[in-house]
Amino acid sequence: MAVRAAVAGASGYAGGELLRLLLAHPEVEIGALTGNSNAGQRLGALQPHLLPLADRVLEATTPEVLAGHDVVFLALPHGQSAAVAEQLGPDVLVVDMGADFRLKDAGDWEQFYGSPHAGTWPYGLPELPGARAALEGSRRVAVPGCYPTAVSLALFPAYAASLAEPEAVIVAASGTSGAGKAAKPHLLGSEVMGSMSPYGVGGLHRHTPEMMQNLGAAAGEPVTVSFTPTLAPMPRGILATCTAKAKPGVTAESVRAAYEKAFADEPFVHLLPEGQWPATASVYGSNAVQIQVAYDAAAGRIIAISAIDNLAKGTAGGAVQSMNIALGLDETTGLTTIGVAP
Amino acid sequence: MAVRAAVAGASGYAGGELLRLLLAHPEVEIGALTGNSNAGQRLGALQPHLLPLADRVLEATTPEVLAGHDVVFLALPHGQSAAVAEQLGPDVLVVDMGADFRLKDAGDWEQFYGSPHAGTWPYGLPELPGARAALEGSRRVAVPGCYPTAVSLALFPAYAASLAEPEAVIVAASGTSGAGKAAKPHLLGSEVMGSMSPYGVGGLHRHTPEMMQNLGAAAGEPVTVSFTPTLAPMPRGILATCTAKAKPGVTAESVRAAYEKAFADEPFVHLLPEGQWPATASVYGSNAVQIQVAYDAAAGRIIAISAIDNLAKGTAGGAVQSMNIALGLDETTGLTTIGVAP
Amino acid sequence: MAVRAAVAGASGYAGGELLRLLLAHPEVEIGALTGNSNAGQRLGALQPHLLPLADRVLEATTPEVLAGHDVVFLALPHGQSAAVAEQLGPDVLVVDMGADFRLKDAGDWEQFYGSPHAGTWPYGLPELPGARAALEGSRRVAVPGCYPTAVSLALFPAYAASLAEPEAVIVAASGTSGAGKAAKPHLLGSEVMGSMSPYGVGGLHRHTPEMMQNLGAAAGEPVTVSFTPTLAPMPRGILATCTAKAKPGVTAESVRAAYEKAFADEPFVHLLPEGQWPATASVYGSNAVQIQVAYDAAAGRIIAISAIDNLAKGTAGGAVQSMNIALGLDETTGLTTIGVAP
Amino acid sequence: MAVRAAVAGASGYAGGELLRLLLAHPEVEIGALTGNSNAGQRLGALQPHLLPLADRVLEATTPEVLAGHDVVFLALPHGQSAAVAEQLGPDVLVVDMGADFRLKDAGDWEQFYGSPHAGTWPYGLPELPGARAALEGSRRVAVPGCYPTAVSLALFPAYAASLAEPEAVIVAASGTSGAGKAAKPHLLGSEVMGSMSPYGVGGLHRHTPEMMQNLGAAAGEPVTVSFTPTLAPMPRGILATCTAKAKPGVTAESVRAAYEKAFADEPFVHLLPEGQWPATASVYGSNAVQIQVAYDAAAGRIIAISAIDNLAKGTAGGAVQSMNIALGLDETTGLTTIGVAP
Repeated sequence: MAVRAAVAGASGYAGGELLRLLLAHPEVEIGALTGNSNAGQRLGALQPHLLPLADRVLEATTPEVLAGHDVVFLALPHGQSAAVAEQLGPDVLVVDMGADFRLKDAGDWEQFYGSPHAGTWPYGLPELPGARAALEGSRRVAVPGCYPTAVSLALFPAYAASLAEPEAVIVAASGTSGAGKAAKPHLLGSEVMGSMSPYGVGGLHRHTPEMMQNLGAAAGEPVTVSFTPTLAPMPRGILATCTAKAKPGVTAESVRAAYEKAFADEPFVHLLPEGQWPATASVYGSNAVQIQVAYDAAAGRIIAISAIDNLAKGTAGGAVQSMNIALGLDETTGLTTIGVAP
Repeated sequence: MAVRAAVAGASGYAGGELLRLLLAHPEVEIGALTGNSNAGQRLGALQPHLLPLADRVLEATTPEVLAGHDVVFLALPHGQSAAVAEQLGPDVLVVDMGADFRLKDAGDWEQFYGSPHAGTWPYGLPELPGARAALEGSRRVAVPGCYPTAVSLALFPAYAASLAEPEAVIVAASGTSGAGKAAKPHLLGSEVMGSMSPYGVGGLHRHTPEMMQNLGAAAGEPVTVSFTPTLAPMPRGILATCTAKAKPGVTAESVRAAYEKAFADEPFVHLLPEGQWPATASVYGSNAVQIQVAYDAAAGRIIAISAIDNLAKGTAGGAVQSMNIALGLDETTGLTTIGVAP
Repeated sequence: MAVRAAVAGASGYAGGELLRLLLAHPEVEIGALTGNSNAGQRLGALQPHLLPLADRVLEATTPEVLAGHDVVFLALPHGQSAAVAEQLGPDVLVVDMGADFRLKDAGDWEQFYGSPHAGTWPYGLPELPGARAALEGSRRVAVPGCYPTAVSLALFPAYAASLAEPEAVIVAASGTSGAGKAAKPHLLGSEVMGSMSPYGVGGLHRHTPEMMQNLGAAAGEPVTVSFTPTLAPMPRGILATCTAKAKPGVTAESVRAAYEKAFADEPFVHLLPEGQWPATASVYGSNAVQIQVAYDAAAGRIIAISAIDNLAKGTAGGAVQSMNIALGLDETTGLTTIGVAP
Repeated sequence: MAVRAAVAGASGYAGGELLRLLLAHPEVEIGALTGNSNAGQRLGALQPHLLPLADRVLEATTPEVLAGHDVVFLALPHGQSAAVAEQLGPDVLVVDMGADFRLKDAGDWEQFYGSPHAGTWPYGLPELPGARAALEGSRRVAVPGCYPTAVSLALFPAYAASLAEPEAVIVAASGTSGAGKAAKPHLLGSEVMGSMSPYGVGGLHRHTPEMMQNLGAAAGEPVTVSFTPTLAPMPRGILATCTAKAKPGVTAESVRAAYEKAFADEPFVHLLPEGQWPATASVYGSNAVQIQVAYDAAAGRIIAISAIDNLAKGTAGGAVQSMNIALGLDETTGLTTIGVAP
């Protein structure tokens, strides 16, 4: 019996990627598709790459439309998920791809989002210690942010193994789809092609507290994060360069061993052979995370670099992976570790 | 019982894309992978996006290595397929992704390739009139060139319905993967990003006689082709703008009707709703062909435009589709019409 | 004594490029800079590449602000130039970078722009027969469209020398800056990177009548034009592939000779050596036009291909070149044939 | 009287950019152009954007060919400059764009380049404390590496003002032209478009000791550098994100003041208004450096980000700027702070 899934926010990039994945998911039947400003339009005009759904028409995001599904995915602007989720009942699996239920600390939420904190749901990054158990059987899932996915996976093994000092310095490059589909002048192709630029510098990016939450949990102590995101001239992909000062006694071997152990049984995290470094092109369209780590003895720092597809593992793939776990399906169902390259 | 497939030329772009598709094909088991200069290397170093095959090691392209498979795909430089095919026996399905067996006219082959003509195999573009029947049960398949795939599908309905004069003018833009993985200065990222440039202008491109062969067969008379390929700053995709003077009496309605009829039952060709035009991004990674056609009354010309992924439908997807037909599998097995976008 | 120049519409791409060129022009002093929605903003925020003007503040586009200049450049939306020009007086050189005064035929204007025809000004493509003389001393200049610049220069020699039949087939690829700086979803970087797509197919593009006007004048008879523009994943540049059936008796030599003669004394048009084809990267940021032409004997067609920078020679460079002629300055003052590459 | 300049290595990207700048330099006359494997070829085939030099033919790099010039620029592979420079005589200004004479410490050179140390020449980054004086009248100049240019300018004010702890963490993204024009598979357009990837991770990049040399000199104590370069999908540009832990007592105001003071009189370094961050597109083709700095109080770090054009200010522009100083010309002659954008 198929899992019937609705997608609220089907016209954006996250919604589109989710539909791409759900179309390939053998256990899922795609139900209602909703939008707001785009309600009434053919999906073929909005997501022309999703040919099997071209003739579907977007409906309004209402409780009536979303009723009668086993799973409801929310790909809504930040702050809108709580109101919708409330109306869906406790037996429906609600997978929120927005930020609303990611943070545990209400103060952090209010500082970075400026609205009342809606709550905290089980966190959809199964590779983190303890996360998988919290997702099993849950009917609410908070899908992580794309940057926190890339960064937390790259650094948590160093913190979990007590190899790194609690001050991380992270610079990440993201493809433009991470900024969404709303037309803004600085996201025009003319502006972004041929250009690298930073934004949200100096601790201003909303994903910073989420990274601190994840790394601090792994370390068992607070971890400060200096995070600088940059916009790269590509549609998809995140390359996260994550460094932290090594604790005394750390060696290249102990670092490697910690990472091998952390990811030994993970179906989607691939620790590359020594000497090979990740590239975002290798995970294009896939749910894989490619990671490499080095110990720079001269600088005394651990450097872990991860590559993900921000829309796939960083958003919609993480959502499907969490859904699989919550519903008791095989975690890898409908997902791939194979990228589309070149 | 799985179909066991070998791939000769697994380190290049065509071979890599084929492996990507075969990994998702439920009836295929991937057997020997061969290369020449790359024999002995891990596939993970050469095709880092194909994680499930990362630890496979390339072997030399020899009859012994290729023996014992149900299907052998040849992704070799032009002119090398005949010698390999000869040694494979008549019961093995040999799918040649090179040019060697595409042309019917030995003179055309010799003029454009400068070597003796190896022969002609059933042509792997099932959507052309009569092509599907020739592929069924065949043990030899010549996969079309990427440009001829895009162009022939865009224009054959106009010729088959006697709507167009036999002089086609075609300008196509291709992503750089169409030029292969051999490192040449003009294909460096520094050169191609931000640049459009033509090549093989004036009837010099080797795909020209293949287009003439296909369009002439549809028209029932010789069709001259003015073909100008251009290199576009993107990794994949072909956009083919194909025009021909309309015959007397042609109307927008008669053109539309001919195209609707030609593609009504085709699983991979999608004639877009009127007013919507194809984009290569929409077919990225998919086996779909998106087509639109218009009649420009002022200029008296039919303009048909197609978008394909040159590596997928244009090469490896076409190869798998033909394999499916030859082996009696459902034609769409393991293939998708869903692109990866944005 | 410096020429004092005002720029109306300084916040857009055409205005920005014009300012880049005027900053390098030894005879020009930059006066008023105006915008509408952006009035009051620092230019440094809008055009961060123009450091010497970073602290200039945009004013409103009013007659008072534009008064007191020797030259006023209009980089306004189509249809707005006439009202502004009227208020500027007959002694001020007005250079209109919009479409308003390009077309001679009022019916063409009304059909393609849907408003009353404002008139016709001397046409700022000095390389066309007779154009230079009309510009000398003129106080009104209509700068050509970017596509008509690329196309007319590529094809007029064939028509002027009676080598081509009066039916041209043109496919051109343009960088995204040609679509302007207004934020529209289909122009987002996420949409355009990795994608080629056509638009305005079937004679719908507003530049079509302008091409017909130019080519018809060269031919001495009406020339029909089948024009298909495509959007390419690059910020700048136009590559125009222009073909026409050759008249009887045409040879490769007669074609080459006609083009050599047409451009022998042109400072900005560079006919490439035989066998070398233009690339838009080679004219990035320059006022040069690179052209190559071939005769395809098998198809019986002349193929002329030009590369320009759509913002430079295609808009702002053409405007400065025309200004130079109108004011009696050396035509090449402040302009370069040197591109920025790679 | 013109300065007569020769360029050894005129076929590569550094040589091509240098020629582009020298063509616009009012005091320079371009003399001999040499290459090795390309000797005998027309420059028009190798550098098609340099139209005024299209008919120049490359000569071999010999003392005879390089004799008789006032300035000789060396754009040669690392390790080849010393032998050429020896033969040029002490009165000729030799500007080495390679690495050979940048490092003061012979041990550093030998560790990173594996050959004997050739010596140390005045360092062509005039903005560094004391550098300008060393360049005045010198007849030997070592042009800095592109990354060290971007990084040293971004961070030296923090070290010179004793604001930062001596452990810098730097992640930089570079356009592909920084990797040169030699055709290597990983630099193919198909590989780099759509992809971000790191290289030389963990202190392995040859530019690391050069950064340590510059920052250590500013700090008056050794500075360790964790440097991670990444390859970005764009032809040109470096965005360097440079962070260091702030010393006790540092405030946002003290950081800003230090940077304003450091760059107050610099013609090419532009400290952006607070809140505006650099983008590589804004310095495309220009000699400008755009810098912004922030103090992240929560993380306790200074974050300085610079954008340069790696070929211009990062290589050829820095070379011309240094030449101007060495020859007693105005430092800005022939150089611009105006970028080509979009």
